Amino acid sequence: MSKVEHQNSTVLTDDELRTLDAHWRAANYLAAGQIYLLANPLLREPLRAEHIKPRLLGHWGTSPGLNLVYTHLNRVIKARGLDALCVWGPGHGGPSVVANSWLEGSYSETYPDVSRDGDGMGRLFRQFSFPGGVPSHVAPETPGSIHEGGELGYALSHAYGAAFDNPGLVVACVVGDGEAETGPLAASWHSNKFLDPVHDGAVLPILHLNGYKIANPTVLARLPEAELDELLRGYGHEPLHVSGDDPAKVHRAMAEAFDTALDRIAGIQRGAREEGATERSPWPVIVLRTPKGWTGPAEVDGVPVEGTWRAHQVPLAGVRENPEHLRQLERWLRSYRPEELFDADGRPVPDVLDCLPEGVRRLGSTPRANGGLLVRELPIDSLDRFAVPVDKPGTSLHEPTRVLGDLLAQVMKDTQERRDFRVVGPDETASNRLQAVFDGSGKAWQAEVLPVDEHLDRHGRVLEILSEHTCQGWLEGYLLTGRHGLFSCYEAFVHIVDSMVNQHIKWLKTSRELPWRAPIASLNYLLTSHVWRQDHNGFSHQDPGFVDHVMNKSPEVVRVYLPPDANTLLSVADHALRSRDYVNVIVAGKQPCFDWLSMDAARAHCARGAGIWDWAGSENGGEPDAVLGCAGDVPTQEVLAAAQLLRRHLPHLAVRVVNVVDIARLMPREEHPHGMTDFEYDGLFTADKPVIFAYHGYPWLIHRLAYRRNGHRNLHVRGYKESGTTTTPFDMVVRNDLDRYRLVMDVIDRVPGLAVRAAAVRQEMADARTRHHAWIREHGTDMPEIAEWSWTV
Amino acid sequence: MSKVEHQNSTVLTDDELRTLDAHWRAANYLAAGQIYLLANPLLREPLRAEHIKPRLLGHWGTSPGLNLVYTHLNRVIKARGLDALCVWGPGHGGPSVVANSWLEGSYSETYPDVSRDGDGMGRLFRQFSFPGGVPSHVAPETPGSIHEGGELGYALSHAYGAAFDNPGLVVACVVGDGEAETGPLAASWHSNKFLDPVHDGAVLPILHLNGYKIANPTVLARLPEAELDELLRGYGHEPLHVSGDDPAKVHRAMAEAFDTALDRIAGIQRGAREEGATERSPWPVIVLRTPKGWTGPAEVDGVPVEGTWRAHQVPLAGVRENPEHLRQLERWLRSYRPEELFDADGRPVPDVLDCLPEGVRRLGSTPRANGGLLVRELPIDSLDRFAVPVDKPGTSLHEPTRVLGDLLAQVMKDTQERRDFRVVGPDETASNRLQAVFDGSGKAWQAEVLPVDEHLDRHGRVLEILSEHTCQGWLEGYLLTGRHGLFSCYEAFVHIVDSMVNQHIKWLKTSRELPWRAPIASLNYLLTSHVWRQDHNGFSHQDPGFVDHVMNKSPEVVRVYLPPDANTLLSVADHALRSRDYVNVIVAGKQPCFDWLSMDAARAHCARGAGIWDWAGSENGGEPDAVLGCAGDVPTQEVLAAAQLLRRHLPHLAVRVVNVVDIARLMPREEHPHGMTDFEYDGLFTADKPVIFAYHGYPWLIHRLAYRRNGHRNLHVRGYKESGTTTTPFDMVVRNDLDRYRLVMDVIDRVPGLAVRAAAVRQEMADARTRHHAWIREHGTDMPEIAEWSWTV
Repeated sequence: MSKVEHQNSTVLTDDELRTLDAHWRAANYLAAGQIYLLANPLLREPLRAEHIKPRLLGHWGTSPGLNLVYTHLNRVIKARGLDALCVWGPGHGGPSVVANSWLEGSYSETYPDVSRDGDGMGRLFRQFSFPGGVPSHVAPETPGSIHEGGELGYALSHAYGAAFDNPGLVVACVVGDGEAETGPLAASWHSNKFLDPVHDGAVLPILHLNGYKIANPTVLARLPEAELDELLRGYGHEPLHVSGDDPAKVHRAMAEAFDTALDRIAGIQRGAREEGATERSPWPVIVLRTPKGWTGPAEVDGVPVEGTWRAHQVPLAGVRENPEHLRQLERWLRSYRPEELFDADGRPVPDVLDCLPEGVRRLGSTPRANGGLLVRELPIDSLDRFAVPVDKPGTSLHEPTRVLGDLLAQVMKDTQERRDFRVVGPDETASNRLQAVFDGSGKAWQAEVLPVDEHLDRHGRVLEILSEHTCQGWLEGYLLTGRHGLFSCYEAFVHIVDSMVNQHIKWLKTSRELPWRAPIASLNYLLTSHVWRQDHNGFSHQDPGFVDHVMNKSPEVVRVYLPPDANTLLSVADHALRSRDYVNVIVAGKQPCFDWLSMDAARAHCARGAGIWDWAGSENGGEPDAVLGCAGDVPTQEVLAAAQLLRRHLPHLAVRVVNVVDIARLMPREEHPHGMTDFEYDGLFTADKPVIFAYHGYPWLIHRLAYRRNGHRNLHVRGYKESGTTTTPFDMVVRNDLDRYRLVMDVIDRVPGLAVRAAAVRQEMADARTRHHAWIREHGTDMPEIAEWSWTV
Repeated sequence: MSKVEHQNSTVLTDDELRTLDAHWRAANYLAAGQIYLLANPLLREPLRAEHIKPRLLGHWGTSPGLNLVYTHLNRVIKARGLDALCVWGPGHGGPSVVANSWLEGSYSETYPDVSRDGDGMGRLFRQFSFPGGVPSHVAPETPGSIHEGGELGYALSHAYGAAFDNPGLVVACVVGDGEAETGPLAASWHSNKFLDPVHDGAVLPILHLNGYKIANPTVLARLPEAELDELLRGYGHEPLHVSGDDPAKVHRAMAEAFDTALDRIAGIQRGAREEGATERSPWPVIVLRTPKGWTGPAEVDGVPVEGTWRAHQVPLAGVRENPEHLRQLERWLRSYRPEELFDADGRPVPDVLDCLPEGVRRLGSTPRANGGLLVRELPIDSLDRFAVPVDKPGTSLHEPTRVLGDLLAQVMKDTQERRDFRVVGPDETASNRLQAVFDGSGKAWQAEVLPVDEHLDRHGRVLEILSEHTCQGWLEGYLLTGRHGLFSCYEAFVHIVDSMVNQHIKWLKTSRELPWRAPIASLNYLLTSHVWRQDHNGFSHQDPGFVDHVMNKSPEVVRVYLPPDANTLLSVADHALRSRDYVNVIVAGKQPCFDWLSMDAARAHCARGAGIWDWAGSENGGEPDAVLGCAGDVPTQEVLAAAQLLRRHLPHLAVRVVNVVDIARLMPREEHPHGMTDFEYDGLFTADKPVIFAYHGYPWLIHRLAYRRNGHRNLHVRGYKESGTTTTPFDMVVRNDLDRYRLVMDVIDRVPGLAVRAAAVRQEMADARTRHHAWIREHGTDMPEIAEWSWTV
């Protein structure tokens, strides 16, 4: 451990120290001003109650530390000409990051009405946490940010995502000691085992131990320093400590720590890039210990505030009502000597600006944080190259994800030079049958490699770690900085990142409303190893609810696709990979599945999102007697098998088969951009005929999407109803009443007058189900009539 | 670091070594047998293809390591008379844990048809991963387990949950090196900062580094040992290493490691309990390095299998078709020398059983793993003691969660001796205004304490760590071992544990079907700081979707309550805390809220789950013209304000107000045990009158629950539609069209003929909304008519 604490470093001249401190004081002043002031921003007159905001919102505690980091990043960016980005983990420090980007001019360039002068400062203060203004967190609205700080845990994985394939970039990442307690953050420290010092940039974590969360001390701040150092070294880092509460000493120590860290980073990169070193070296981490709410009120109403959890939000809460609080606030704000920091017009004086880099080097202006400016079209070959030949529906079998794997492999190859495409997943790329991608790129791995290992590659772009959180965070960071990717995941376990995808969707929704944020590549999920084919892994692996989860979110951002076979999967994936600013959820099978559509037919079907499969139904001109709807590969197969049974047993019945790929098509057009009009909907499903809909997931989702439709009361949905266990594939559908026999019975029960006429057929179906039960309990496999079923008409 | 590797330990006599090895070989044989054999369990005849299961499912890779741990735990339990429990993190090791509990007799006592003899062994083998049989993971069906291993990450937090307040218990916890990469697991290592050596038991983690996941090496297995040791010491542990592939040497090293670890644990506990030590000591962790698939086929089809990822699942996959595989399997199985291990009747011989403890000391028989056997009624005082007085609805204000805090404090006090109640939360107990609980118990904390800290207590039973995952895991472990608790969480961020609650609900659903599992205390969530009052924290903190998430799960397990005021919250919480085998989700406010119901009225209302609030409506005898439904505190207030406006502006309109506390009441009775009959539903909501329903969360959830109702097409739901930002409380409801003015407009628009008659009123409502917009943009606070509104009729 290198100790750079309180010593007389010679890194800074006295002049530099003075100007850095001026910048820091200015940032502190502006952060506090945003929390408190509605008027009198420069304190040109004595502070009065009416200058104070009626609601005091915001987080002071973390701000001075973030201001210190921003100030010192400015110094090193300027001194070294760095291409740098910073991820601000303690996102509640919104006032700090906003203050700094205003000081450097980025803010006013992004939002010209908030000019870098007294008027602008007034607006800057007023808008903070004010209706129609800006949020109290670092957020999409914040120039230079790729990281919303409302929910904690993802700072470091975002930083690594930004650093991958950006060899010239240094990503600083402030990790709060609160956030450091979360699982996702704890796991993401090991990201350094996946960072290629040749092709990737560097991540410089700054662990900010200000000691407290909302109401408690933090675990890491209360470890003895030796124990903390062991932890950080165990994570693969070399700690550099900066501690103290004397600004001058801390400035000197901080400057030295940054110089040491950046020298080490440069050394590691030089070693790997020029000297061919392959040994994993410990990367530097700065451990910054400064008081929470540093430079704020030391004591309020007789209790300590600075350096305690009481400084977390608004240290002086009663300013409008309590004259003593008002006096304390004024003393506090004036302690920064704003008259020395801002000129007569309220513009920052040259000393304050001295440390700042220029142009796109400024943290608030780097295009890295507005990835849409950098994103390029992904090269995707013609799908015909990967398509499976389909002369007649249902006569051949393919594993859809394996077919997709070939396409992904080609994208990997075609981005070998550009390095702007990654596939991430929790140790499941091969299990999900995408292993062809390894022909395009190996798996990133910087730790020890043994002869028995396969596909590990120091320069690989497939990322596999058994942490869905880390996968998600990496990919988000990668996309937000202007690149492309795909996350392949077991369907059930993608719920692990429910909360992360919430936040990413919120980020995209807000970004879309900001004209200066350019659209980024969509976040693409491939959910496979899905509910119907987790018969072997059992109940814990059976959950199709992620679709429900995302369908609650902003319809302008969310797209959900359930391609029923290999070619439709290709079409949907192609569309998703080319798209921008969406979260695309693709649910597809990895098990052998009948090929229903040729590539051309698949393209046309996916473009419509839902359509009648003429060849599968038994209509002849008029309205059908019943509609069999389906969405998802297994439901589609069961519906086709049911259609076949109906054709055989009830040849005069006119049955229509409708397949839905894009489930938002079921919604009203007013509620989702992909929604159908009622006219279109009725054209597919009729307005009054019974519709038996076999859906991949929870059946009520279909009702929730279609409840306004004319035909809704005739809509009868089958799907997964949480009846799972370890069993056979067909038993899964039987247990959930989604099987072909049940669907035939549903049709018989629902078509008026049919129940009597078709009683014998209905009994035959019921008998088949009974036979099934007996068979699997004896043999442990599906009945031959199921296992060997094929589509023949 | 203590190294106990390959040395000639003297802990074991040669005789002990022989019997331990016999037990281990028997367990290995039984684990492999479960994966492969349909018949010929004892290999009394040459192995033929027809003896092999048609589908080979299961996970061999982790099994020999787990068998080793089980064997050696048996030894120390017996030798020391330990009260022990083991959490088997690598849950795919189902065959191993099942094998061991069969050997010790627990399995046959739990499932008498699977007797401890040749017949039983045949059934044991056949049932594994077979329809109607047992899952391939450690699961509720597995005797001695409190931990389903399908989804990874929660082993260690479950283990700590089991250890809290069980001072005599040692909880061993096997952490796989795959699972160790997950976020929740990584965070949970720090649980030792919350473990009280006086009142809590001990957790002994056994980090099993077999080197590989499904298809990749693991991160921790590829760290240099010194780096791994730093990591573990940084986590607060003292590592003890056991490595090797020579069984005899590993047995000796393992025995010594267990003895060393248990001596240290005893030493730490003695220090704290008898000598008053308060310094946190490093707890032992055993690092076990053995080959993946140890003792299985070294090589298959020319590639290495033992010791590689290829041993993860079924090492020999083509046994029924490939005679060479069949031969290899037979060689492998016979390598354990089953004829030495089982007698003529297939019963384990005495040597095999020598290491086993007896009765409830057996890991498969401990009541700790069947917590319902141990759980006691929670002492909850009469609610009248905590109730707020309500003479007239809406004339006083209380913060509901603060009122609940008094009740929780009393439960804390009344369980001071029993120590079987905990409150967990991510640093939000005070923020959620439950701080009264600190009168009953402080916050558990074993790290450094500073004078400025408040409520930290080495013996506290409030658990706060900024990790929702750890909170959830701790509480699950605590409940599953027979105790009680409550998890208080910000509503938006409870999504972080979506996937964990999925698994817990699945556990409870399966457990309910097992007669031998006694009901445990419910998992109770208090979700507060909810969507409508996160106006200050902004969009990232606004998400009411957890209710949707759990409502997809088994209705027999899930209960959701939205109490509209303080007394209803008391009633609901009382019910939840007394209940068994549920997941109860309570969504309640922490902000000042009108008191609507007296304690008696609240009890009656909550018992019904939904009811007409006569005093709020304007009916007089006949059918109403419109129904205003509401669920949740803020929607209830807006509905009452709308009812008041309607009464004032349209005095002849008959409006009914229906409040719903238990939202499952809206479902059909056939679909949820709490569902209403149509008769009941129509009695509340009418069959044909317009219903304007103001709901706390996403509006379509109400449609999904009520779509089968007669009156569904007249049901118009308002709720949160993802229109969030940093603004004022009232603006949140306006943005989402849930405000009183909008609700009045909805009534006017929907009651036939009213639109014309009430055009002026409608315009007045629209004007009020316009006024609101202008006001908040100027003042940043809500209009006085909103801020000062009260219910007066």
